[in-house]
Amino acid sequence: MLAEIITIGDEILIGQIIDSNSAFIGKELNKIGVDVHQISSIKDDKQHILDAIEEASNRVNLVLITGGLGPTKDDITKHTICEYFDDILVENKDVLMHVERLFAKYISTPISDVNKQQALVPSKSTVLMNLYGTAPGMWLEKDDKVFISMPGVPYEMKGLMKDEVLPRLQKRFNRPYIIHKTILTYSMGESALAEKIEDWENNLPSYIKLAYLPSLGKVRLRLSARGSDKKLLQDTIEHKVSALNLIIGDIIVGYEEDETIEKRIGQLLVKQGKTLSVAESCTGGKIAQSFAANAGASAYFRGGAVTYATQSKIDVLGIDPKIIKRYTVTSIEVAEAMALAAKEKFKSDYAIGTTGNAGPEKGDGDVEVGTVFIAIATPKSVFSEKYVFSDLRERTIEKAVNKSFELLLNLLL
Amino acid sequence: MLAEIITIGDEILIGQIIDSNSAFIGKELNKIGVDVHQISSIKDDKQHILDAIEEASNRVNLVLITGGLGPTKDDITKHTICEYFDDILVENKDVLMHVERLFAKYISTPISDVNKQQALVPSKSTVLMNLYGTAPGMWLEKDDKVFISMPGVPYEMKGLMKDEVLPRLQKRFNRPYIIHKTILTYSMGESALAEKIEDWENNLPSYIKLAYLPSLGKVRLRLSARGSDKKLLQDTIEHKVSALNLIIGDIIVGYEEDETIEKRIGQLLVKQGKTLSVAESCTGGKIAQSFAANAGASAYFRGGAVTYATQSKIDVLGIDPKIIKRYTVTSIEVAEAMALAAKEKFKSDYAIGTTGNAGPEKGDGDVEVGTVFIAIATPKSVFSEKYVFSDLRERTIEKAVNKSFELLLNLLL
Repeated sequence: MLAEIITIGDEILIGQIIDSNSAFIGKELNKIGVDVHQISSIKDDKQHILDAIEEASNRVNLVLITGGLGPTKDDITKHTICEYFDDILVENKDVLMHVERLFAKYISTPISDVNKQQALVPSKSTVLMNLYGTAPGMWLEKDDKVFISMPGVPYEMKGLMKDEVLPRLQKRFNRPYIIHKTILTYSMGESALAEKIEDWENNLPSYIKLAYLPSLGKVRLRLSARGSDKKLLQDTIEHKVSALNLIIGDIIVGYEEDETIEKRIGQLLVKQGKTLSVAESCTGGKIAQSFAANAGASAYFRGGAVTYATQSKIDVLGIDPKIIKRYTVTSIEVAEAMALAAKEKFKSDYAIGTTGNAGPEKGDGDVEVGTVFIAIATPKSVFSEKYVFSDLRERTIEKAVNKSFELLLNLLL
Repeated sequence: MLAEIITIGDEILIGQIIDSNSAFIGKELNKIGVDVHQISSIKDDKQHILDAIEEASNRVNLVLITGGLGPTKDDITKHTICEYFDDILVENKDVLMHVERLFAKYISTPISDVNKQQALVPSKSTVLMNLYGTAPGMWLEKDDKVFISMPGVPYEMKGLMKDEVLPRLQKRFNRPYIIHKTILTYSMGESALAEKIEDWENNLPSYIKLAYLPSLGKVRLRLSARGSDKKLLQDTIEHKVSALNLIIGDIIVGYEEDETIEKRIGQLLVKQGKTLSVAESCTGGKIAQSFAANAGASAYFRGGAVTYATQSKIDVLGIDPKIIKRYTVTSIEVAEAMALAAKEKFKSDYAIGTTGNAGPEKGDGDVEVGTVFIAIATPKSVFSEKYVFSDLRERTIEKAVNKSFELLLNLLL
């Protein structure tokens, strides 16, 4: 069962927004055994939309379209779809009521004619109610192929996918069985990892595919098994993962699809009944935010101090100004003092301290751009390392955040 | 001058990664007057790659391809390109030296045969040296059309684009003149804005296109003018923006392509010689991090306290436990106390305080999930508001961050 995704919007092609919708749709379709063959991002242009729908429908049986359903002039998807299906727009009473309700509840301005037009849909379409916005989803069929149009606003599209599209697709199509297994590894690069598991990889059966998804400081391995024998697929995947664990068990973080090092740290801390705090300078709150972003963080994450200015390190964390003066603000000593101060102030068992210079200019310290000192305070001690990451600000911050996770995870495992 | 982008990788189609490369490439091409006609994300599959390259080359004169150049088995782009151009792979001495140097400098493991194969390139290609990784870029021509292959690792691709691809494209192709002007507005929704500027929009000349790019709490308007008469385009855009300013000047944040509310806040604070700090609970460091992410933040951003646990609000910020007990930890009073405490601790002129419950479960407070209190302390006073944002954790955090920027910007303007 193959699908294609078409995302419509000039803003994607000129790079003003990143098309994250396709990734979400691809992930959700995959879970129900629908394989995305291609994603095409195209212009708000009638002929281009018509061509793209036609080409996609020549390759696959399911075409999902997002974008171009807004109330403004540059949104032409609905009219174009109408033309493709040789149809006319008719007012849908349910959608109109829903739009009126949304305006009454959330929006102070009165409902306008432009907004009321959101209730117009192709007469041949099945309306997919969009509870999160004014533009309804639309389901159309032609020659036994299914076409679905959704708004481009990510949370509206996500809601529609979950509430309407996925349940209907599962009823409408027979699909093969598919299992993905993700293994998150850390502290080893892609090619070193590939060599280490070469024999294992060569022995994978043909119905299991392996992909390497490297990112900063970690590699995600993804096994995809596909076939009709559910039990065979499950058993083989399980067997292969056990075999892999024998080879690289020491660098495996976990097996969840959305596994992250910071989530794993959270789980380990909860399991060990320990807590964490952070004291950040150059990472500016990104470490704290990475933990706080996870639901349930309050079980182990006490908080953090973002002491960006040197004086704040003294005023807020109580770092001894003499240490700063003697070693400079970007130093092993200050990183360790920050971690220890966070541990004390936030009454946590572990603490991370970062200080450095992410650039682009030299800051309060005198180290070269890209230098970061990371300290980890444990219940019994503190240690730290100096790193030189990059001359790109964003990348230095990212690498420092990642490295701090890696150091802490190493300690907890 | 039209281009297409092809991004290769199963990981994009199953949604394990979001294709951010296309957005970067689209943005950079647009700046030099090259229009991206379509972005196609396809599989690591030989026939699919061959088809996609052929189709794109039938539509446009420039095809940029990313991905599938890694050293592992699932990376087949180079061999497939070789087949498309009826070519063979040959070792490139410069690339080999570069790969060896990279290994000697950064990587502790010895260089392997797999890594040495990165130096193999199609004999007809011009090598584009990738200073940031082992996979070189490749430039090939056929029937007066240009094909460029780059690695999929974002910072390697970005480096190649800037160092090699863009300068070469500017030499190779004649391009029309193009101007984009972005106007960031806040605090008004897309359709209300569209109605307010309807007459202005209807009077735009045919060579200027307007797009609405709405996101949380803001709408970016993008004007794109295209033609051969540079001066006419510039003058008309300038004239139209001035006219727009008369209609909605009060909700315009700024005109930079990468304008954000937090950057604008930073500029205003620097201009007024004022500083900022934050005290965050449910937003978990995201506000601090948004400011710290900008180069030059140290000129106005003093730092922040992420007091996630209730006790941390007392221990770190010095909030009076009686206030927490009396009003609960998620309250107007605690938000204001947090903002005032941050202002005092960090010795800043302004401070933001947030406390609330982003969910999914009820936390230390007893307000419903999605409730956030935001306080702003100014040099002279403090005020706060209660909001109920969403029952989705991520969205509540995002909305709270945005709203706090909006409140502060309102004060500074």
